[in-house]
Amino acid sequence: MADENLSLVLYGKQDLRLENRPIPEPGYGEVQICIHDVGICGSDVSYWQNGRIGDMVVTKPMVMGHEPSGVVSKVGEGVVSLKVGDRVAIEPGVPCLTCRQCKTGRYNLCGKIKYCATPPDHGTLTRYFVHAADFCFKLPDNVSMEEGAMLQPLAVAVHACNRVNVHLGATVLVCGADINEDRLKYAKKVGADHTVLAGDPQQTARVIQDSLGGAADVTIECSGAPSSVSTAIYATATGGRIVLVGFGPAEVRLPLLSAQCREIDIFGMTTFANSYPAALAMVTSGQVDVRQLITHRYRLEEALDAFEAARRREGVKIIINCQRK
Amino acid sequence: MADENLSLVLYGKQDLRLENRPIPEPGYGEVQICIHDVGICGSDVSYWQNGRIGDMVVTKPMVMGHEPSGVVSKVGEGVVSLKVGDRVAIEPGVPCLTCRQCKTGRYNLCGKIKYCATPPDHGTLTRYFVHAADFCFKLPDNVSMEEGAMLQPLAVAVHACNRVNVHLGATVLVCGADINEDRLKYAKKVGADHTVLAGDPQQTARVIQDSLGGAADVTIECSGAPSSVSTAIYATATGGRIVLVGFGPAEVRLPLLSAQCREIDIFGMTTFANSYPAALAMVTSGQVDVRQLITHRYRLEEALDAFEAARRREGVKIIINCQRK
Amino acid sequence: MADENLSLVLYGKQDLRLENRPIPEPGYGEVQICIHDVGICGSDVSYWQNGRIGDMVVTKPMVMGHEPSGVVSKVGEGVVSLKVGDRVAIEPGVPCLTCRQCKTGRYNLCGKIKYCATPPDHGTLTRYFVHAADFCFKLPDNVSMEEGAMLQPLAVAVHACNRVNVHLGATVLVCGADINEDRLKYAKKVGADHTVLAGDPQQTARVIQDSLGGAADVTIECSGAPSSVSTAIYATATGGRIVLVGFGPAEVRLPLLSAQCREIDIFGMTTFANSYPAALAMVTSGQVDVRQLITHRYRLEEALDAFEAARRREGVKIIINCQRK
Amino acid sequence: MADENLSLVLYGKQDLRLENRPIPEPGYGEVQICIHDVGICGSDVSYWQNGRIGDMVVTKPMVMGHEPSGVVSKVGEGVVSLKVGDRVAIEPGVPCLTCRQCKTGRYNLCGKIKYCATPPDHGTLTRYFVHAADFCFKLPDNVSMEEGAMLQPLAVAVHACNRVNVHLGATVLVCGADINEDRLKYAKKVGADHTVLAGDPQQTARVIQDSLGGAADVTIECSGAPSSVSTAIYATATGGRIVLVGFGPAEVRLPLLSAQCREIDIFGMTTFANSYPAALAMVTSGQVDVRQLITHRYRLEEALDAFEAARRREGVKIIINCQRK
Repeated sequence: MADENLSLVLYGKQDLRLENRPIPEPGYGEVQICIHDVGICGSDVSYWQNGRIGDMVVTKPMVMGHEPSGVVSKVGEGVVSLKVGDRVAIEPGVPCLTCRQCKTGRYNLCGKIKYCATPPDHGTLTRYFVHAADFCFKLPDNVSMEEGAMLQPLAVAVHACNRVNVHLGATVLVCGADINEDRLKYAKKVGADHTVLAGDPQQTARVIQDSLGGAADVTIECSGAPSSVSTAIYATATGGRIVLVGFGPAEVRLPLLSAQCREIDIFGMTTFANSYPAALAMVTSGQVDVRQLITHRYRLEEALDAFEAARRREGVKIIINCQRK
Repeated sequence: MADENLSLVLYGKQDLRLENRPIPEPGYGEVQICIHDVGICGSDVSYWQNGRIGDMVVTKPMVMGHEPSGVVSKVGEGVVSLKVGDRVAIEPGVPCLTCRQCKTGRYNLCGKIKYCATPPDHGTLTRYFVHAADFCFKLPDNVSMEEGAMLQPLAVAVHACNRVNVHLGATVLVCGADINEDRLKYAKKVGADHTVLAGDPQQTARVIQDSLGGAADVTIECSGAPSSVSTAIYATATGGRIVLVGFGPAEVRLPLLSAQCREIDIFGMTTFANSYPAALAMVTSGQVDVRQLITHRYRLEEALDAFEAARRREGVKIIINCQRK
Repeated sequence: MADENLSLVLYGKQDLRLENRPIPEPGYGEVQICIHDVGICGSDVSYWQNGRIGDMVVTKPMVMGHEPSGVVSKVGEGVVSLKVGDRVAIEPGVPCLTCRQCKTGRYNLCGKIKYCATPPDHGTLTRYFVHAADFCFKLPDNVSMEEGAMLQPLAVAVHACNRVNVHLGATVLVCGADINEDRLKYAKKVGADHTVLAGDPQQTARVIQDSLGGAADVTIECSGAPSSVSTAIYATATGGRIVLVGFGPAEVRLPLLSAQCREIDIFGMTTFANSYPAALAMVTSGQVDVRQLITHRYRLEEALDAFEAARRREGVKIIINCQRK
Repeated sequence: MADENLSLVLYGKQDLRLENRPIPEPGYGEVQICIHDVGICGSDVSYWQNGRIGDMVVTKPMVMGHEPSGVVSKVGEGVVSLKVGDRVAIEPGVPCLTCRQCKTGRYNLCGKIKYCATPPDHGTLTRYFVHAADFCFKLPDNVSMEEGAMLQPLAVAVHACNRVNVHLGATVLVCGADINEDRLKYAKKVGADHTVLAGDPQQTARVIQDSLGGAADVTIECSGAPSSVSTAIYATATGGRIVLVGFGPAEVRLPLLSAQCREIDIFGMTTFANSYPAALAMVTSGQVDVRQLITHRYRLEEALDAFEAARRREGVKIIINCQRK
């Protein structure tokens, strides 16, 4: 079968292999997708380096990748929304649809969700992938396959903004690119009004407030570092809101009283739900340009090099092209 | 002037005195109120025992008490909503009304709010008190003066429920009466379906979930104890909400990741805003019976005894009657 | 096959027949239910009298009934949540679960929903019925089969309250029992503080406001009559909210400007979503007593008499027992 | 006193005069403002042409204008937030701050609000105006006086978006520039993706949906015309939302059932509350360019010509400069 379904497979801690795998066939309600582009996420690197993230442990070989786009190559029974040749972005989590969380629209909290490249479910760094048609989104002509792959991180941002309710005129603080001067420069280039290098939480909060001309109405904490969460609390305005996007250690020491007595609300968050349509609309209309975040490109055959670059935190977003040359 | 305006005054840490003070006169928009009943709150005891709560320090003599009701005895210029003889509950905080927080309806977060018995502002454990007419609520005939005083703690509960959005059919966990068997019995008597004595957070959470037949949709944390906040996180359902009512130490160690990755929202809270009308409506209609929470009654002349009882955590709510015998 | 699956079937306008039908077998994810009780709804009577409701026309024989409870008699493949003998309430609408409305938690708006006794889908006034297991709710021992049937109208009320956000302390106006003195008496008996017989909208609104001591914060309009919607607008407070529960004519003449310039929000509504769990919790805990609304009881064999009584608007809720004698 | 306080005064229906008036002095908490720019609003034209809008009738001479900016020329007692020389935008409504609506943050619904150029309160088309300092907003250096004046219509738009909750990725329909080809061209120039000339509601709704590729998630109805409100209902998606910005006749005939059974929510709206800070932030950051909407400029001495142009619906926004030459 040669390299007909070349895939990047994690066998365990620091054991990442390129290997060929059988081509999967679509079942009822599913489509087979010829994968085009897949972005690398920090969590991919964590699974590779540690063989786990928290309680989620890689115990058997798992295909990596969960930021995919591709072209429909086969259509399973019962699928009417897609046809062969359709260019699609793939929302990487497929929930049960029938539990209480799913029924109330919070399907990202489904206890039975199958999420690409989260053990034990396979991901999309492969030539051919099978997925529920209901979680594939057809791309308009003016949206590229790379942009389709970028919808996944954009969907995370959409969900974060929805959770924390970024309102018109809000002063927004984003924590998390903040111990690396180069990343701060990049943040400024792509839209930040001010950037601050992180240090002691209370002092950093003061510098932030000086930059903003006041405390932040809304804070999006993307690092998960305890000091960054503390900074978020100190830098957020009385009556403000914080959403926790980045994951940190199981337990953290926090200035909770400062948040509580100023009625700051702290919102948890994991992946997203119902965010792909908004992300796609934002890219389609040209309101958001996700292409400028792509700094490195590799081919699937070079995936190990791509992961090494990601491990060294090079650039911003690394995309792997999975098409056969 | 004899005892014409007998008042309970805190001079500093563990220095509480009954003394006579001048009778205040109402200014523009104010009324003078002949105080009838005042409940004792845990924060009153904290100020007395420690001379401070956090950054708020008693640096000069301060009249105690912030859960008051009374009868209007004089009406200042410009007041049209009240007349002499009106029976009123007194909302104890008067905000500036013009800052951003006030204009947006969150006047409890006003940086200039004057709150009874919070340094340096005097409280209501006195014969005659002057207050902004706009923060006095006329009591219907079927609401007693004691019930009027109880509107203040009820307003705290209303605000907590509003912040955390207690919805129809919600399973609600209240943390905080929970290391004292007698208080648990009282909680059960006044409406709790189940009670659990607190211990190790994860283990207590399991017992709570067993009692409830599942995790809590909404948790109202009233103790401020770090272990109780941890219990609240573990015992709350995925997608649930927690409101922090009780104040704890400045910094706490928390299982924040458990809350975050299950999209649990944590709401801060301090006193209340716009809650007196709801509290009054609930008592007036008979939906809530606050009288059953009053376990001890004292006269103003016995206020030191009342505070000793409160310090020993006797009963549930202690009311001090401030009328002249 | 005798009367093994006696069913009440609507053949068209004013052509309602009791007849025997084949017993259906459960498919994948489905259960067969031995129906116990079914309430009669005003819409059942409308279909019978007019052969249609708006665009929904009875073009082929349709089993009536959509307020059901029963006992699981067979379990289809893939069902793990239920077993034979389980007593259940049946949520009568089964949505597609995968469209945008379903994914966002508003599955009552699903364009593909199959709703009992809405053409062309069969209802539950039958001995044996097959339904998706995910839309059956197991009843605790302390909830009777009749109460199980009553969960459907209660779910409508839950959804109305959720849509219009009935808050603590709110003054609530319910429009719709309001041209019949007997029904007003019943409303008062089961909890209304005041009742007003409807007439000219502006005048009725004034009488309502006099009764309430002010305008309503929240209005639940249950009749659909244009005059009642107008009354709702006039009687609702500035900044208040109205939910439209009752369906009226396609077009109505309304004092919209009065609502608009007082920032009254008008919420549409159709059936419910995610409301059965709350309804069940309210009945289980004893917070709501739905039994007092049941005024008439019939057996399935007497279903035509039951419908005649409903057409004459006798009593409040008529329940048909579908068990074999 | 010559023309020291030249003002544009409406004496009644179609009786608009330029005349000199006494210069007002600031009281406690007030500032005197040397007016710089004032935009003309459609409501100004309505008062002029009809002497009234609905129940609000001009019964004595009233200075026109309610979209103002200016420079602080005197500071009243108690004002600390502003000083002479400060460039400010003036929020034209001053509420009582103490009623229930004000306390809950909805001060635009205050029954005692004084709103510029709404009978009997004077407006800002004058050289010198006195206003509550708490409702003046200091302009940063990069915001011009004309932009300051444009904050008022922008605040209306901010309030509309807040009421109807325009979310990320939403498809938004704006009704109301829609019977004039030139205005549609302008709308397209300043950001509309598609424009449709209005006609029969159901047919227009179909054309709109064809343009958008589906129904609108959110509709902002700005005309008040009954046919436009009907179009809004037909063109809005199931589960969508409509905000009514434009005022129409007291009673309208509406396809309410179509909105109701698709759970479309209809939000009323009048002016704005807490919207100036957001409007100012949007202009300051450059996110919104309000200057492109200004098509005509006049001096206060030419105010009658300016109103004639507004009456003929020339251009988009007409600004009157009130400075002495």
